[in-house]
Amino acid sequence: MTPPLQARDAHPGAFVAVDWGTSSFRAWRMAADGTPLAESRSSEGMQHCAKSGFEPVLRAHLAKLGAADALPVLICGMAGARQGWVEAPYLATPAQLHALHEGAIRVPVAGDVRILPGVAQRDAQRPDVMRGEETQLLGITEPGFTGLVCMPGTHSKWVKVEGGRIVDFTTYMTGELFAVLSQNSILAHAVDAGASSTTDSDAFRAGLATATADPSDLTSALFRLRAAQLLGFEQRADGAARLSGLLIGMEIAGALRRHGGLASVRLLGAGSLGALYESALRAAGLAVTVCDAEQASRQGLCKAALNLWGS
Amino acid sequence: MTPPLQARDAHPGAFVAVDWGTSSFRAWRMAADGTPLAESRSSEGMQHCAKSGFEPVLRAHLAKLGAADALPVLICGMAGARQGWVEAPYLATPAQLHALHEGAIRVPVAGDVRILPGVAQRDAQRPDVMRGEETQLLGITEPGFTGLVCMPGTHSKWVKVEGGRIVDFTTYMTGELFAVLSQNSILAHAVDAGASSTTDSDAFRAGLATATADPSDLTSALFRLRAAQLLGFEQRADGAARLSGLLIGMEIAGALRRHGGLASVRLLGAGSLGALYESALRAAGLAVTVCDAEQASRQGLCKAALNLWGS
Repeated sequence: MTPPLQARDAHPGAFVAVDWGTSSFRAWRMAADGTPLAESRSSEGMQHCAKSGFEPVLRAHLAKLGAADALPVLICGMAGARQGWVEAPYLATPAQLHALHEGAIRVPVAGDVRILPGVAQRDAQRPDVMRGEETQLLGITEPGFTGLVCMPGTHSKWVKVEGGRIVDFTTYMTGELFAVLSQNSILAHAVDAGASSTTDSDAFRAGLATATADPSDLTSALFRLRAAQLLGFEQRADGAARLSGLLIGMEIAGALRRHGGLASVRLLGAGSLGALYESALRAAGLAVTVCDAEQASRQGLCKAALNLWGS
Repeated sequence: MTPPLQARDAHPGAFVAVDWGTSSFRAWRMAADGTPLAESRSSEGMQHCAKSGFEPVLRAHLAKLGAADALPVLICGMAGARQGWVEAPYLATPAQLHALHEGAIRVPVAGDVRILPGVAQRDAQRPDVMRGEETQLLGITEPGFTGLVCMPGTHSKWVKVEGGRIVDFTTYMTGELFAVLSQNSILAHAVDAGASSTTDSDAFRAGLATATADPSDLTSALFRLRAAQLLGFEQRADGAARLSGLLIGMEIAGALRRHGGLASVRLLGAGSLGALYESALRAAGLAVTVCDAEQASRQGLCKAALNLWGS
């Protein structure tokens, strides 16, 4: 799917792709034809590096990858945030995916190191921001793509793309709500967040149904999750699945209301979370096309690198 | 408002009232006529005492109050939970407020120390529990009261009372959501929880309006709170008020939907939180009668003590 990178004098046919998120770092040394030749991962995300510095982390990974000093480096994600390494200012919607590279910021270090911009929706009624997802979108869409893309995660995003441009998007705090509720609230007693119980179970579907039937019921449904266990109506083992169903159901209810008449969606799905979303979206009557989330960032970085350094 | 306590031989006309919550302890030595003679407060709530023991805490406060050993003690709240001192099993709905004392559990220590029961709604579709609020309800309602009572807090409760009986209630995690989101989520950057900004401001009313207009939008509205500040549409000083508006608005939207045709509500209101709820309820078109939350537990304990030990 990825077009081959073209060689050019200064950068002989290869580069390093870096997906630098809030809490994770992933880098690949890429061949000229877009094949990953070596990979290096760690938990040295933005939060880590904001204290310890970004350049030493990048240099250490470049060494691990066996990357020559002359190789250019293209980075996406939170490293470009204001509190990151060097700010790569947001592009504004509507944002052309195939022009992302034009907003890349050169980092003032030795070599050619650039950070791709995020995208901002500067609408006072629906302000929103993304960093990293725009590169995944570039990776999973063909030129001129039109459609809605659901990108599950800590901050799930629903992105409307028209003719290859991001025209509208909405972030839902679904993943973070799951984390803080299951770790820092009274629901810690009711949810075993580490359990493999966040599967497509009866409790998950019941949670979905509750949120879909009446979104205004959410904050009481959260408490009922605890009360149901106190009173013996539900087992703790089902808590994570029900919480997951409630929050994903809430997100889908919101997206369906925002995008009236929606019939199909492209899902950036990976692992068990992707499977949950796929099940939930189909239950809501949507046709779902699943894209591989694992490769999305790398493919997007490849396309942007080709635009940037290709002949 | 409180009927005088009658003297009886074993307990010469007085008792100690204790409101023992999750994170707070309040006790009063009461005169025979229901007047508080001395008060003792601390943060030695259930969570504290579950580790260090309950009896030493009670004895220390009784000494501070100058309470004779012979004085009976009546306790309400989380001390009666399973993870508390001695479990006072829940009464089931419909629960007659003036019969709460019949469910009081005697604590096996020297003297007459009893804990009032909580109330459970053993409905598989809407399981719910309360501990402490039932005593406040007894305190603020006249015999035979019929109406809806809104009790704001960490776990806000909306209670339907008919003929002096709790017939239906719903808990909303409003206060706890505010706390975990403003302390443990990305919204910590956007909300100054300690600020006095949770007032009846434009940001509060905007949050209310957002939640009321479309409850399914909540989890995205939470993220927008952060995005609006990143993009310069809102100041951090307004974050707490907006978050408060979103969550209280969500609670009211849920309650209005549950209680169709609702026209009036009795509000257990205290301090700035009570003022926010009063404003929000009036904005929703409801007639509001405000009751004093500070005295509610003590008045309820007084009425129950009279039922228990009065002649």
